[in-house]
This record gives sequence, structure tokens and C-alpha cells, in this order.
Amino acid sequence: MSNSEIGIRLFLQLAVIIATCRAIGWLGRRFLGQTQVFMEMLAGVLLGPSLLGLVWPEAQAWLFPQQLLVDSDAEIAIAHPNMTILYALAQVGLVLYMFVIGLEFDLRLLRGRARSAGLVSAAGIIVPFAAGAVLLPYLLGRPDFFAGDVRPSVAWLFVGSSISITAFPMLARILYERGIASTPLGTLTLAAGSIDDAIAWCLLALVLALFQRSPEIAMLTVGGGLAYGIAMFTVGRTLLRGFARALEHRGELSMDLFTSVVVVLLTCAWITDAIGIYAVFGAFICGAAMPKGELGELLTHRIEQLTTSLFLPMFFVYSGLNTRIELVNSLELWLVTAVVVSISILGKGIACMLAARLAGETWHHSAIVGTLMNARGLMELILLNIGLERGVITPTFFTIMVLMAVVTTGMASPLYHLLSRGLVLDGARVPGTRKPLMTSLKRAS
Amino acid sequence: MSNSEIGIRLFLQLAVIIATCRAIGWLGRRFLGQTQVFMEMLAGVLLGPSLLGLVWPEAQAWLFPQQLLVDSDAEIAIAHPNMTILYALAQVGLVLYMFVIGLEFDLRLLRGRARSAGLVSAAGIIVPFAAGAVLLPYLLGRPDFFAGDVRPSVAWLFVGSSISITAFPMLARILYERGIASTPLGTLTLAAGSIDDAIAWCLLALVLALFQRSPEIAMLTVGGGLAYGIAMFTVGRTLLRGFARALEHRGELSMDLFTSVVVVLLTCAWITDAIGIYAVFGAFICGAAMPKGELGELLTHRIEQLTTSLFLPMFFVYSGLNTRIELVNSLELWLVTAVVVSISILGKGIACMLAARLAGETWHHSAIVGTLMNARGLMELILLNIGLERGVITPTFFTIMVLMAVVTTGMASPLYHLLSRGLVLDGARVPGTRKPLMTSLKRAS
Repeated sequence: MSNSEIGIRLFLQLAVIIATCRAIGWLGRRFLGQTQVFMEMLAGVLLGPSLLGLVWPEAQAWLFPQQLLVDSDAEIAIAHPNMTILYALAQVGLVLYMFVIGLEFDLRLLRGRARSAGLVSAAGIIVPFAAGAVLLPYLLGRPDFFAGDVRPSVAWLFVGSSISITAFPMLARILYERGIASTPLGTLTLAAGSIDDAIAWCLLALVLALFQRSPEIAMLTVGGGLAYGIAMFTVGRTLLRGFARALEHRGELSMDLFTSVVVVLLTCAWITDAIGIYAVFGAFICGAAMPKGELGELLTHRIEQLTTSLFLPMFFVYSGLNTRIELVNSLELWLVTAVVVSISILGKGIACMLAARLAGETWHHSAIVGTLMNARGLMELILLNIGLERGVITPTFFTIMVLMAVVTTGMASPLYHLLSRGLVLDGARVPGTRKPLMTSLKRAS
Repeated sequence: MSNSEIGIRLFLQLAVIIATCRAIGWLGRRFLGQTQVFMEMLAGVLLGPSLLGLVWPEAQAWLFPQQLLVDSDAEIAIAHPNMTILYALAQVGLVLYMFVIGLEFDLRLLRGRARSAGLVSAAGIIVPFAAGAVLLPYLLGRPDFFAGDVRPSVAWLFVGSSISITAFPMLARILYERGIASTPLGTLTLAAGSIDDAIAWCLLALVLALFQRSPEIAMLTVGGGLAYGIAMFTVGRTLLRGFARALEHRGELSMDLFTSVVVVLLTCAWITDAIGIYAVFGAFICGAAMPKGELGELLTHRIEQLTTSLFLPMFFVYSGLNTRIELVNSLELWLVTAVVVSISILGKGIACMLAARLAGETWHHSAIVGTLMNARGLMELILLNIGLERGVITPTFFTIMVLMAVVTTGMASPLYHLLSRGLVLDGARVPGTRKPLMTSLKRAS
């Protein structure tokens, strides 16, 4: 297959995927009150074998060619080059995106709200792991959910982290968009969401480490991951401040400065990928360790739009290709799915709502906190895809968990609208103006 | 080979390539008065077999793995997935970059300078083709420069366009950087450069069309290319104005708007790729047909930095891998190279200088015009790589032409410095202030 043929298909693939994701997103935002990110999750599933593959298999096979026969005699088939390219574009996109998310991550949000945020985020971790423990005996008893050699502790960590993931970027977008990010309710949710996200990711890193083939590699992964995290928030942070000083000195984000940041980011992605805790962690921590302020804003501005528009849809479709709803092919499996969804909502959404109430919020505010904490979004898909790629979970369980992610993410935005409408009627408890505080909310639009 | 292995290598490759290009660029700008784009051309050659492959073959083979054995019994090897990915990243980068170049292309530059610009640009096309005709009998007489089945007319068009290419973006950068873009000298050079570039690209499209296997395909390519160009500058232009109106209406470049532009761009890239005149043309014409003004500036701002910093270096290294100086392995071939370089300088640089003098410019100004028109830069590499990929030229002739591009591009910036220093001494003929007029000159820095 020549480079020229690969190139021709590439541009059409990109155009079709991006146009579809954007169009479906527009419809969902316009008519269903949904977020772009949820609609792109859905678009990924729809473009996969679960819908497009059923109704128009030829188009699906053309758009996502699964295999290329390099020798028909020897029956040797390889991954199609165009799929490898989509995978790479998705990876580069995720790394850039997680870096931007890291840039926005700011523990200063905690100030003054430490107690209630601590309570909500603790509930958002402990209860999901308890819920995971309840589900575990059944899940492990089935032959078709986990890899045969997976230890119960690893499976538990995986299920627990999956339930406790919060779509932090999505939560932040909704709060900023509605202009309530800086209200007590907004900061509480932002703080609790960011803590939960960070903890769930650390636990997933631990899962991946524990699932390594040999104890030596697991040691390297855990030790390397810890060393990387500590290094980035100590020496790394000090060194990265040099970028902020250079920006101050030059007065603009020059190409040299920008490229240096990109090289640091790619190196972080490579290090964490190589030690086995995945490039997305490295990118997120790199972003979180960067000095806040003007540098972060300029970097976000230069990276975000092209990344979100051009590269991120590749991840959603790649994930959608792995989602095969036809695997959930029995009443029992659909019941399992319903139970998983319910326990996930109880374990995360309801648990966080009750914790917020316990911390002194009104029922109305608590319900909003629970609703937003319950959305899992893109973060959950990243986690599930890593689990599938590493062979921790099977395609069947992957699909069930994707359905859980889709349902819990999809209910967040409409439920939030419903709840905040109630608040407006209450008069005194309007959580803030409805006009955006920040003008740069491009991702959610 | 698993996706995970591909991902690990990808991030390290990207980090090493980008860091090397930036570091070599910095050295060249700091100590040699060179431009970043020239130094990246050079970095591409140095990372290829011509230097890194000689001094540290293991590193070269790791960084750019050429083949992957999928079956050792049947001895079946495929292109290494990571090289396919670099190729795809380079293509996406080129399309985005050429789109930005197209956005900057503005025929309004011609106003009031039509006669002299016409004279300079005509000289910059006619003389190179005459020079090509002089070289042609020798070049075609050799068995190792052109494909066996290439017609003399096609070979002539290829050599002529190669000599007449102007690095329009580089020329524009130098003029803006020195603050002389809006002086009579600046507008003359910009106008002549942009006309020459457009004509040379059209001619190359014709070469590619004529080199198609069958007359039917050639007809499709020529007809399709013409139809595409005409459609874009008539119906397309009118439709694209809708984007500018949407921007005016909304007051900001929303994600929906930005993504729609990206989809149009990718579709243009795909159409021109599919009809055989390459995605870079489609992208350039798409950019040129976009409405000028705020929309163009915002798009440039959102696309340029990430593209130039992250993706464009992939093209330079990809081109550098094809450049194999060891193929120029005889005194005769080195003599041929020297002759090709000299004739290219005479046919383009000197010809444009004389034309500018004829149009009434001083010798000093004329020398500057000639120097800038003579730089071929990235544009020449795109053209050569297309010729090589299409099998019009051999790797040997490709390498000779790359050497020509490197020499003529490399001499432009130092020569310009020398000439403009002379102008400062002349006092009255200072071509403008030395401070940048525009602040957004990131690409050249």
C-alpha cells in the first residue's frame, strides 16, 4: 500500500469523522441540551460496529479498515496503516488534551472549602470502592469479564476506579458556562471533582502496575510513577517556572518557548508510557506542575482548539470501535449492565449528594453536586481503553462499562438543567448569573 | 507490534525530532544569521542517512525504523508503523501549514506595482524554464536521474518548476521581520514572489497530471484541478464568506465555526489528493480563497504555532530520509550538482535581479529582490518529494536538487544581511526601520 493511497484515505477519514462528531454534537446541544463531549462519545459508538457497522457495513469497513492482507498465500494480515495512523493521532490528541486539563487543575480551589470538599471527595472514592466490592464476586465469577490471570485485588481496583472517575473537565465547563464556578457551590464541586480525579488516576496507575507480567516490572511502574510524580512537583516545578520567567522576560510566547514546552510534554508522555503508566498521566501531571497564570492561559489558547477539533474525535471513534454492543447479547448481560449503571449512580452520584448534604449544603445544592460528580465522560473512556488494551478486561465488560459511562455522562447535563431551573424558581438560591464569567469556553460550545 | 509499543516509540521520536530541529535552528539563528526554516531543512538532512546514518547508524535505525519483518520465513517486510505515522503527521502538518500560507496570500499586494512585479515574476518563470531547457539534454541523457518512461516535456516542466520555485512564506517572513514589507521594495518582492509561486505550483500540477499512467487519468487531473481552482475562487469564495459573516455575527471564533473550517480544509485536501494534484495544493487554494481580515488572522493564530512546532519538523525529517548524499558519489555528479546550483542561481536570482533593475529599481534594491526570490525553502522540498514519490525523478537526482534547495535557501539570509547593511551605510536608501511591524512573527523566530 503506497503512502499516496494512505494519504488520500486519511484526509477523507478525518473529514468524515470530524464532520460527523461536530454535526451530532450540534444536534445534541441544540435539541437535547447535551454537551459536545457527551455527543462525541455517542458519535464514536454510533460510527463503530454497534450502529454504522450494522446498517451500512461497507461504509464502516471503508472508514475503519480493520486489516490489510500483506500476503494472501501465507494469510498474513496486519493492522491497516490508516488505523494505526488514527490511533497515533488519537494518542497525540489525548496527550495534548490532558496537558491542557492539567494546566487548568489548581489545588488553590480547595482554600476555605477543605472540609466539605474533603467530605464529598472522600465519599466519591470510598463508596465507589465499596460498591465495587459488592459487585466483584459476581463479576469475577463470570468467565467473560476479566482476563483469566487477573488477581481479585487488581479487578477490584479497576472496578472501583471506574466507578469513582469524575469527568473533571466536563464538570468545570458546565460550572464556568453557567457562571457559577466561583460561587461556594462551584468551588466545592470543582475541588471535590479534581481531588477524586487525581486519586482515581493514581489508583488506576496502581492497577496497571500490579497487572504487569513480572513483579520487577510492577516495581518499576509503581516506583517509576511515584518518582515521576514527586520529581515533577519538586525539581520539575522549579525548572518549569523557568518557562514562566522566560515568558515574562520576552513578553510573548515565542516559538522557541512554545516548542520547548512541547518537547518537555512529549518527554513526559514518553517516560510515563515507557514505565507503563501511560502517556495521559504524564501529560496531565506535566500540565498540573506547570506554573499557573499567563503561561498556562497562552498555552491553552494555542493548543486547545486545534486539539479538540481535529484530534480528540479520533479518540472517540477509536474507543467506539472497541465498543461492541452486540456482545451484550443476553437478558442476563443487559441485567448486569442495568445493575452496573445503578450501582455506579448510587456509589458516586448519590454518595456525593449525601456527603454534600452532610457537609451542610441544601438538598438542592447537594443534588447538583451529586449530578455533576456522577458524570464520567472522556476520562472514563480513557481508563476503559487502557484496561482493554492491557488485557485487564474483556471486550464484553468493556462494552458494559462504556454503556455505564454513556448513561451517567448523558444524564448529567439534562439533570443539571432541571435542578438549576428549580433553583431559579426558589429565587434566593440562584447559584449565580447565567452569563459566562469566562469568554474562552470554547470546548464546551 | 502492539499499539502500546508504537505509542512509546512515537513520543520519543517526536520529542527527539522536535528538540533537534529547534536546537539546530536556534544555533543557526544565533550564530549564523540563518532562518529557522532553513536550519530545519538542514536538520532533516543531518538526521537522515547522510549524517546520523553514517556516524551513529544504530540511533538512526531506531529513530527511523525502515522496515518491519512480519514473517521471517516468507521474508515479508512492511513499512514500519512508526514511519507511516510520521508520514501521516507530516502530511497533516503540511496541509495545515499550506492553508495558513494560503490565508496570507493576497493579490491586493499587486496594486500599483503591477508592471514591475509582472516583470520580475515573468523573469522568475521564463528564465528558469529556459535554464531548464539548457540543462535538459544532459539530464535526460543520464540513465539515473529520471524515470525511464518520463517524457521530455514532463521532465522539462519538472526541472523548470523546480528552478522557479520561490520560498514565498520565508520571503514574507524576512520582509515583515525587517519591517520593510510595506515599503515599495517589500511589496514588489512580495507580489512577484507570490505570482511566481502560484504559477510554479500550477505547472507542477500539470507535471503530475501529465505523468499519470493513462491519458484519461491525466485529463481527470488537469480538468479536475482546473475545476477545483475555478470553483474555489467563484462559488467557493462566496460560500466561504459565510464563515466571515458567522464570525462577525458571533463575535468569536467558536468551536463550531473553527471545526467547520477544518472540515472544509480536509475535504479540499482530500479532493485534490484524490484527483492527483496533491493535498498541499488543495490546502493552499482553500486558504487563498478564504475571506481575508479577522477570520484569517484568528485561524492563523489558532493553527500556526502548534503546526509549525509539532508537525512541520516531521516533514523535514521525512524529506531528509530521502536525501542520500552518498548517492552523489562521483566527481561527475558533484560537478553536475555545482552546475545545477549555479544555473538555478543564474536562472532565478540573477534573472530577477536584472528584471528589477530593468523595472527601475536601484542595483541595491534589485540585488535584494534577486536574493529573496532565489530562496526556495520548504516549497522546493514539497515539490521534490512529490516528484520522488510519484517516481518522476530518482533518489540521486532528488538528492542533487535538495542540495540545490539547501544552498540557495541558505545563502538568502546572510546575503540579505550583507546587502541591507550596505543600504544602511548608504543612508538615504535604508529600506525601512529594523523593528518588526507585526508582532505575530512567530514562524521565522
